[in-house]
Amino acid sequence: MTDKSIIETNVGNYLLDALYGHGVEHIFGIPGDYILQFDKLIEEHQINYVNTTRESTAGYMADAYARLKGLGVACITYGVGISITNALSQAYAESSPLVLISGAPSLSDCSKGQILHHLLNKHSIFHQMDTTQLEIFSHFTVDQAVLTSPEEAKSQIDRVLWNCLKHKKPVYIEIPRDIATAPLALPLFAENEEYLDEFSAENSTPLSRAIAMEPLLKHIERILQKCQKPVIWAGHEILRYRLSSSLQAFASKYSMPIASTLLGKTVIDENHPLFYGVYQGKMSQPEVANMIENGDCLLMLGGILSDVDTGIFTAKLNHRHKIFVTASEIIIDGQSYHGINFVDFIQALAESNFKLTTNTRTTLAATAAPEPSPAINRKKKFNPVDGARLTSARLFECISALLTDEIVAVDFGDSLFGSSRFVLKENSFLSCAYFASLGFGTPAAVAAQLAAPERRIVGIVGDGAFQMTATELSTAARYGLDPIFIILNNHGYGTERPLLEGDFNDIHNWNYSLLPQLLNSGIGVKVSTEYAFEDAFKTALFQRGNFYIIEVDLEKTDFSPALEQFLSFASQKKVPLD
Amino acid sequence: MTDKSIIETNVGNYLLDALYGHGVEHIFGIPGDYILQFDKLIEEHQINYVNTTRESTAGYMADAYARLKGLGVACITYGVGISITNALSQAYAESSPLVLISGAPSLSDCSKGQILHHLLNKHSIFHQMDTTQLEIFSHFTVDQAVLTSPEEAKSQIDRVLWNCLKHKKPVYIEIPRDIATAPLALPLFAENEEYLDEFSAENSTPLSRAIAMEPLLKHIERILQKCQKPVIWAGHEILRYRLSSSLQAFASKYSMPIASTLLGKTVIDENHPLFYGVYQGKMSQPEVANMIENGDCLLMLGGILSDVDTGIFTAKLNHRHKIFVTASEIIIDGQSYHGINFVDFIQALAESNFKLTTNTRTTLAATAAPEPSPAINRKKKFNPVDGARLTSARLFECISALLTDEIVAVDFGDSLFGSSRFVLKENSFLSCAYFASLGFGTPAAVAAQLAAPERRIVGIVGDGAFQMTATELSTAARYGLDPIFIILNNHGYGTERPLLEGDFNDIHNWNYSLLPQLLNSGIGVKVSTEYAFEDAFKTALFQRGNFYIIEVDLEKTDFSPALEQFLSFASQKKVPLD
Repeated sequence: MTDKSIIETNVGNYLLDALYGHGVEHIFGIPGDYILQFDKLIEEHQINYVNTTRESTAGYMADAYARLKGLGVACITYGVGISITNALSQAYAESSPLVLISGAPSLSDCSKGQILHHLLNKHSIFHQMDTTQLEIFSHFTVDQAVLTSPEEAKSQIDRVLWNCLKHKKPVYIEIPRDIATAPLALPLFAENEEYLDEFSAENSTPLSRAIAMEPLLKHIERILQKCQKPVIWAGHEILRYRLSSSLQAFASKYSMPIASTLLGKTVIDENHPLFYGVYQGKMSQPEVANMIENGDCLLMLGGILSDVDTGIFTAKLNHRHKIFVTASEIIIDGQSYHGINFVDFIQALAESNFKLTTNTRTTLAATAAPEPSPAINRKKKFNPVDGARLTSARLFECISALLTDEIVAVDFGDSLFGSSRFVLKENSFLSCAYFASLGFGTPAAVAAQLAAPERRIVGIVGDGAFQMTATELSTAARYGLDPIFIILNNHGYGTERPLLEGDFNDIHNWNYSLLPQLLNSGIGVKVSTEYAFEDAFKTALFQRGNFYIIEVDLEKTDFSPALEQFLSFASQKKVPLD
Repeated sequence: MTDKSIIETNVGNYLLDALYGHGVEHIFGIPGDYILQFDKLIEEHQINYVNTTRESTAGYMADAYARLKGLGVACITYGVGISITNALSQAYAESSPLVLISGAPSLSDCSKGQILHHLLNKHSIFHQMDTTQLEIFSHFTVDQAVLTSPEEAKSQIDRVLWNCLKHKKPVYIEIPRDIATAPLALPLFAENEEYLDEFSAENSTPLSRAIAMEPLLKHIERILQKCQKPVIWAGHEILRYRLSSSLQAFASKYSMPIASTLLGKTVIDENHPLFYGVYQGKMSQPEVANMIENGDCLLMLGGILSDVDTGIFTAKLNHRHKIFVTASEIIIDGQSYHGINFVDFIQALAESNFKLTTNTRTTLAATAAPEPSPAINRKKKFNPVDGARLTSARLFECISALLTDEIVAVDFGDSLFGSSRFVLKENSFLSCAYFASLGFGTPAAVAAQLAAPERRIVGIVGDGAFQMTATELSTAARYGLDPIFIILNNHGYGTERPLLEGDFNDIHNWNYSLLPQLLNSGIGVKVSTEYAFEDAFKTALFQRGNFYIIEVDLEKTDFSPALEQFLSFASQKKVPLD
């Protein structure tokens, strides 16, 4: 509090400065009269406004951006903006720190009790603000603020952003039309310092570190001392809380093998010698299943036991000892621990000095670190067969062989299952493996290209999913982004066919490779042979500056090996996939 | 109850039979595993399943279908289906009888407390059904049923459909996966008779007819006896309750002139000699404004005083006498009447025998029935000027001149304002003039072509709106539908530019006329001159069997005459348009 000089700003700019301070460089949105004033502030700010083609895709894009950059923002107008509900729901379910900003009618409009467009006006007879949108979004956000007063706006914004970052879940900020540019006066340095202090302290409280952690760590050490094959199954929360290096340090310290959940794929660099692959019950590759299922202590860290992540409940979780830790609970062999922060805990594991028995150390060293690593080992050179029609299996083999440093964004269905066996860098896989919204892949790929411009994004999308959100290629075109889209054209909702077949699973065929002509941008090709695909994908990878569409013509029931493996198991019992 | 024989059906088929009985021939949806069993029942039913490209557009299509056919149905899977929220919200706000059907996890899945895809699973720890979707949709529906028990399903379905038809608002039916095909036994004739009796009695109760109506009608008669120029301003509820012929009979009986609200456009056949046009305050054509504003008694029937319908509150409503009747309230010169059904009331007006003074009768006859009618009178022959670049004003003149029997579906913005001056048949205008969801026009046009196959549908859509839902052309292609789409390409969200200009109002340009090549169907042209547009539109109208895209290249700030007129008035004061 040494400098008492005042910085003059306004509510909207205070919010934008705070977002920028947290690494946000792009905001995804659709303009509308209730939010135009704030949109104008974005245009004048260092943050870039990214026009999407509609609200729902703005939500998916902000979600994908948040997963890569640590925070994502979507900006909508009131009422019709509830088209974003599903994207918000997915971000909530899959723990993505998304800030949803909505405009709203002005306080004076509301006070007149007028019937306004975009509103249900259920509350207008009471001359109050409409609360419909707030009530709906409250289902899918951990905190909400309606900025009705400039005086309270600063503390509301601080609190809501804090909760977004703390819980890695969406939050909602509603800005009445006349508040965006309302003046706000801040002490110049003092507030900033306090603000930063607050956030750097986010994940560590002296209490949790000192008192609660010790017995927990002792308990884990006692368990590990009794085991010979502890194994790690790590989930998406490790990614969301940026704990990959801590997890990797922990695993390396004790040579413990790691698998990830499907939603948590790329929880560490998958080239790491301790990384085995994605464990997903009966959908897993054999060496991953062997590793996890033959362990005597399962450390499930930051994952959830959803139907998809457990291979529709085929995961074998009958280990003698179970250490189950997520951001919301800690259960060690049935005993709950409370008051311990997830980030603190994973960091404590990384810094631990557990005294394992010599026997355990030897076993771990012998079994868990083969060279080359299990994941790398599976990566084969792809040799196209002359004249061979491309199959789903060979397609994924080819993609796998050619990937190096790319980020892969996939849609739900076989795009996801087939891609689960790629070997990728840390935090380089964007999927909706839990909430399973068809149409996520395309906007996610476009947003990822903005979030990580130096990397190349490869979107892998089925035809049904692609038609849902294909218009976001327009956004790629507008901003000169160059993701590569591989469209698995199996002429329908392929993953549904084994469940119950009908015409409703068919999709009208598009000439996907003509999209660049429609959009005045990009390059499109259609392939059906191994040679043609390899050539097209190599060309696309080699050349930056244009988005690429590679349409792959597949048979209706040509599934990826991962899905085929699962279907042959599931043929006895009816299981839901999507 | 003469015949006690039993008809064996199941829950899903009972619902489908009931919908079919109410005229539903198409259901719009996206399949997904929680709803597949019901989708299969649709496929096997007389009702046709219409695959849309995503859930939100299925909602818009069911809404448009409901406006034309009296009932519309959208069918979604659980969780991700909440993408439909905005469409449902609009149907609620604008009183469209839409039945939303959603699949859900099976009761046995829920009872296990498993974490399932598409669910937030907030409630799963209680081993109960997830209620998130029900809670959200409750905001936008007048009744809801979760069919957890086959025994109760029949009465739940009956009740919910009854309420949909009674209130002309959406309802929600959730079918757990294992309930769709659960058996249901019905008495063969008795139930059917009862069912039909119930519904035919929907809009008339002896109480309301006999007791409440008489003083109300007397009150209105006394008012009319004191007036010389009663005028009618009728809204969309007249259309939703199928009261156009009653309204027309009432107006004709007393030679009262009629204007409609914008949302209520085509409340009667606009070629009728008593019909003046759309009254919308300062956006109205002069003779419509004169007629309404110089009346001494305003009969506002079935409309709402929203910002858009009142020309952003520029409508002059200071008439000496005011008769304000909607489906939810009746206020006569400030006095409220209760217990009277809206349908009964409008029918009573049609059957009334008010004794007006000779003076009033003479005045009405003299002023309210010019020949040809005011609306027809404005319809001019369009003579294209050689080489003239097409302007927005001339575009709407040309469309107006060539329209005969078509249904027009428009998006919000200048597509709506410009189209407000067309002269159309009864119930032949689909707009979202109150809730104002961009992207409604295209799916509405496709659905309308299914609802009214013998008519031709003309969709008029701005480029921003078109990009939101353009994928539904794929649905037109799939089902061989042939609406005509006129795309007003003014290179952005034109209606927002006068409010606050910025790059966010710009739209990436597409080669819209190439869409037929992408979709393997339809015909596309791009025009920029008067001659070329007239030729293209004439050709499209003449030839059935293909959908048509006519892209019209317009200047960024070339607005329709209706909007120009309003903007020149509004330039003094800031008013919201979208």
